[in-house]
Amino acid sequence: MTETVRFVALLFPDVTQLDLTGPVQLFSRLPGAEVHLAWHDTAPVATDAGFSIVPTTTFADAPQADVLLVPGGQGAFDLLADDVALDFVREQARGARYVTSVCTGAFVLGAAGLLEGRRATTHWASHPMLDLVGAVPTHAHVVRDGNVLTGGGVTSGLDFALTLIAELAGDDAARRVQLTMEYDPRPPFDAGAPGRPEADPEQVRRATADARARREPLVRAAVERRAS
Amino acid sequence: MTETVRFVALLFPDVTQLDLTGPVQLFSRLPGAEVHLAWHDTAPVATDAGFSIVPTTTFADAPQADVLLVPGGQGAFDLLADDVALDFVREQARGARYVTSVCTGAFVLGAAGLLEGRRATTHWASHPMLDLVGAVPTHAHVVRDGNVLTGGGVTSGLDFALTLIAELAGDDAARRVQLTMEYDPRPPFDAGAPGRPEADPEQVRRATADARARREPLVRAAVERRAS
Repeated sequence: MTETVRFVALLFPDVTQLDLTGPVQLFSRLPGAEVHLAWHDTAPVATDAGFSIVPTTTFADAPQADVLLVPGGQGAFDLLADDVALDFVREQARGARYVTSVCTGAFVLGAAGLLEGRRATTHWASHPMLDLVGAVPTHAHVVRDGNVLTGGGVTSGLDFALTLIAELAGDDAARRVQLTMEYDPRPPFDAGAPGRPEADPEQVRRATADARARREPLVRAAVERRAS
Repeated sequence: MTETVRFVALLFPDVTQLDLTGPVQLFSRLPGAEVHLAWHDTAPVATDAGFSIVPTTTFADAPQADVLLVPGGQGAFDLLADDVALDFVREQARGARYVTSVCTGAFVLGAAGLLEGRRATTHWASHPMLDLVGAVPTHAHVVRDGNVLTGGGVTSGLDFALTLIAELAGDDAARRVQLTMEYDPRPPFDAGAPGRPEADPEQVRRATADARARREPLVRAAVERRAS
């Protein structure tokens, strides 16, 4: 019999929807996978990309996750002041086999106290702030530390998902999903990360400064609330 | 002033949601982009991945697209018998700057008569059937023929989207989106397409046979209806 694997992901307003929809697409092709998207209620949630996704469950009703996934985006920083959401993350993390994030979802794990002393990664523009939540910032697409798996920015969620599927079900299962999803990337440019030949250093500088200006106060406030 | 670019994508039951949500994420970061997801009505539409997306508009109310996008998935083959959907695609295509598909969305373009004599691509498992709709099947991640741009399976939609953004707004605009999306892929396996070193030839054989068994009758019926 195929083992059931429950993926419970947070869905929230202004999520960078590909942080969520990329990994969930790959997970959904793993035999036995169940996908749950949780929010306070089940009214449609507006993503960052001009359309809404409907939660499948609520914080109150979600089943215990085998894999807890927190995606990122500007909306993730609003969650840092949402005690119900943070309690949900902490509670789910206690029983999950894997506690995971993509992109700036790492800051939600951090605000819930789940990255203390753990190696972790996040989107490049917010990476310099990751130490604020007690993490050991690590530059890689996917970082594993114990049962905590974090992925880099947005599309890194695909590499993250394959890595996680391999952990859960073996390398061959991950290869089968990769082939089904035709994940054989051939980007037409080589600009996908800071330091790549076609990446604009000025864009990197501006985006990093902008992330710090808009997000650092929210991250610091969350850390102070947890300490108090 | 930034030019408005209207992306109108089809949303339908059992869509492979990443065919849609991948490209739409990248498009949404292009300055001036407007994203519209159209279906018969605006009730939530169940995707293939266990959750629903809400259409932003209907076939009757959608604005004229600058870029028309048809995603794929098993649900795309149900559209081949949906005259309202096919009329919408044909009507939109008449006024669009670019007529595009990802994955098996190509068969919807084909059933609407838009691939006649055009080079095109689709997901590898359905690629051998592409000639049935009059296309010139071409093996590439992204194929352009005139104003028709088709992408390969699922995650090829990211390479497709960057190619299209470069067409619309220049290479530098595409590079900026690529960096923002951290699209610097590092798949942990090399199994993403038939013929790759870790791709299982038996999975390729089975999936191709399965696609033909389930889909060829629907494609042939659509072609016959159009001819009659």
